Amino acid sequence: MTQLVEARKGLVTKEMKEAAKNEPRSAEDLRTDVEEGVTVVIKNTNRKGTTAMAVGKHLKTKVNANIGTSGDKADITEEMAKLHAAIDAGADAVMDLSTGGDLVAIRKAILDESSVPIGTVPLYQAAVEGALKGKSFIELEGEALFDVIEAQAEEGVDFMTVHSGVNLRALERIKGEDRIMGIVSRGGALTAEWMRQNKKENPLYEGYDRLIKIAKKYDVILSLGDGLRPGCLHDATDRAQIEELITLGELCRRARAEGVQVMIEGPGHVPIDQIEANIILQKQLCDGAPFYVLGPLVTDIAPGYDHITSAIGGAIAAKAGADFLCYVTPTEHLSLPGVDDVREGVIASRIAAHAGDIAKNRDFMKEDNKLSRARKALDWDTQIQLAINPEKAKRLRDSVPPEDGDVCSMCSNLCAIKVGG
Amino acid sequence: MTQLVEARKGLVTKEMKEAAKNEPRSAEDLRTDVEEGVTVVIKNTNRKGTTAMAVGKHLKTKVNANIGTSGDKADITEEMAKLHAAIDAGADAVMDLSTGGDLVAIRKAILDESSVPIGTVPLYQAAVEGALKGKSFIELEGEALFDVIEAQAEEGVDFMTVHSGVNLRALERIKGEDRIMGIVSRGGALTAEWMRQNKKENPLYEGYDRLIKIAKKYDVILSLGDGLRPGCLHDATDRAQIEELITLGELCRRARAEGVQVMIEGPGHVPIDQIEANIILQKQLCDGAPFYVLGPLVTDIAPGYDHITSAIGGAIAAKAGADFLCYVTPTEHLSLPGVDDVREGVIASRIAAHAGDIAKNRDFMKEDNKLSRARKALDWDTQIQLAINPEKAKRLRDSVPPEDGDVCSMCSNLCAIKVGG
Repeated sequence: MTQLVEARKGLVTKEMKEAAKNEPRSAEDLRTDVEEGVTVVIKNTNRKGTTAMAVGKHLKTKVNANIGTSGDKADITEEMAKLHAAIDAGADAVMDLSTGGDLVAIRKAILDESSVPIGTVPLYQAAVEGALKGKSFIELEGEALFDVIEAQAEEGVDFMTVHSGVNLRALERIKGEDRIMGIVSRGGALTAEWMRQNKKENPLYEGYDRLIKIAKKYDVILSLGDGLRPGCLHDATDRAQIEELITLGELCRRARAEGVQVMIEGPGHVPIDQIEANIILQKQLCDGAPFYVLGPLVTDIAPGYDHITSAIGGAIAAKAGADFLCYVTPTEHLSLPGVDDVREGVIASRIAAHAGDIAKNRDFMKEDNKLSRARKALDWDTQIQLAINPEKAKRLRDSVPPEDGDVCSMCSNLCAIKVGG
Repeated sequence: MTQLVEARKGLVTKEMKEAAKNEPRSAEDLRTDVEEGVTVVIKNTNRKGTTAMAVGKHLKTKVNANIGTSGDKADITEEMAKLHAAIDAGADAVMDLSTGGDLVAIRKAILDESSVPIGTVPLYQAAVEGALKGKSFIELEGEALFDVIEAQAEEGVDFMTVHSGVNLRALERIKGEDRIMGIVSRGGALTAEWMRQNKKENPLYEGYDRLIKIAKKYDVILSLGDGLRPGCLHDATDRAQIEELITLGELCRRARAEGVQVMIEGPGHVPIDQIEANIILQKQLCDGAPFYVLGPLVTDIAPGYDHITSAIGGAIAAKAGADFLCYVTPTEHLSLPGVDDVREGVIASRIAAHAGDIAKNRDFMKEDNKLSRARKALDWDTQIQLAINPEKAKRLRDSVPPEDGDVCSMCSNLCAIKVGG
């Protein structure tokens, strides 16, 4: 039974009650939202030892952290450190995007250790396992992909990115575009290349009903991936991207009709003035389904600072109605992130989510007011304790210690508060 | 002669020609803009060895870096290192906000070394010098303040923050507000306390005509400070802030009538949904004068990350029409920034400015497209060279080196571009 099926029966489930905690929404309201499809309650029926988490309308904007190995570095100990860094920094969910080493063992360790929902992109495992068997990804049968999806669902993976929208029609559209970057989604690029070489439709589009059945069995959230998302500002909001989004809207409705919960994934790299339009369009074309955006990055010139370019886009997206932000780390476009990058990425994304939440609901500003009151009272212990990263706040304050413990070394004896402001 | 006086005569000055370089505006257009007061061309007539820089409508959004000593740390060598770090990172202007050590010597060194315009808050020097003479700021006569202003203008300071809008009426308004933070501007707090203790009007309000005369003599830009700017989200856009803004609009008109160029300073801490309204209001109340904003910070919970909270607010402000962003460093609210903090602050602010510029004029996206083309071509040397901080981009790329030099260690052999995306 999925949460959506239960919601339609009018049942307020244990998972809805869990997910409603610390949200500005009651469990009963959450049931209504799930029934409408504007919210998903995330928890694989096989997952043990975690509480359900909700993503959607009226709720706190959530933050996801991508971790995982690559062909260049597959260190399971470091991945576990990244998992804990992400959760400690406040990530609401983690995706294991491993593509190097023993993928099954890494995922099992992450599922065992994680207190938050875990997502994956099953296509990666299919591609990597194919390569291990000496086959190129092109030689893979669609069957292998469904096997991986079923296996991961059984293991307890809570949400999965599936690039079902990358169909022949979308590839036809992209031909006519003058994109600079082409296809930059790993899953999208692999799928498109498979389709081009095999001259066949995307198995995850053609076999979408089969995907729905697996998702329904374990209440896996289908996170419909935007395989054709723009990879630079120039390519944003083009016909190929919107063609795919229309298809994702249709696929969303089909899954929901069968009682399967759905999120939609979104861009990517977007000029700041197009972000709101992207959110409005997604909500309209996908019947209000939760929107899970990557960034968006608002400039391409800042590799090394893409946690900041993404925080700008993420805040504007959250204000406009995006429900779930996928973090971006400082190493995006440059290398596999390390533990520090993961923490900094989560914090930047949480700042963006929180700024957007305040615009939608002033109740979220209570945390800000608490810290401001401590600041006015020159109560440094409380300021540091309430800071999004107390360790860093303390370290910076101590970097140039003030003689007068009431103030900080920025203004010293001319502190506006101390002066009588 | 000021640039505004020259513009009114229809003269395209050498300074206008210098300032129009690398801008999407001709020198003749700039003349029109200066005449209208929507743009200022910054260069003190006594300043030597620098080129003029313009701030205003149609132009690239500019970034200012605050440096300077405090009572807790007054190291002139470090301040010079901060000056160079700021300029190297791309700051368009620098403010010397020193309040510790030999203020005249520090300022002279900064004026001598800087290739970009220098701003100050003369009130700080008056307050510090008063204290050195054993007087509290309260005992100072208004005369001392005008002496400092005249001396700094003669030295070549290009723009000065003057808190002329903190008048008795504004203080009356603030009494009725339930602010958490009260007055957080150093200049605003000092001025208000002086007025309260002495029961007198603000000398910079009462003696505004005298201020205009000094500014006119050296073509110093008057940057009308928002002494009552909000110090936390809760206090944003309140009656006291807007009362002062109305006065700043009147003062702006009076200065312009005498041929003096004016910028208006703005908040501060502002919820993300109120930023655009703040910009629209300033443009309307101040006859389109250039708007110089600090941040704005979009949440109070992130000391240690206020370069990021400010980049979010700054990007939205720039998109909405803010012309000049004052950077905020990671140490804001915690300590005097060091050299690294200055660099990171400038870069975060430049990202914000650039994201906003793209929204207003797609010509600014050319830099992004260049980097994207290098990314598509897997041309790493060019990607790094075009990055906003090439050193950091290279360091991060090398942190987990890829086996295949074409890709990066994030996706390794599954690089979407390499796969055929």
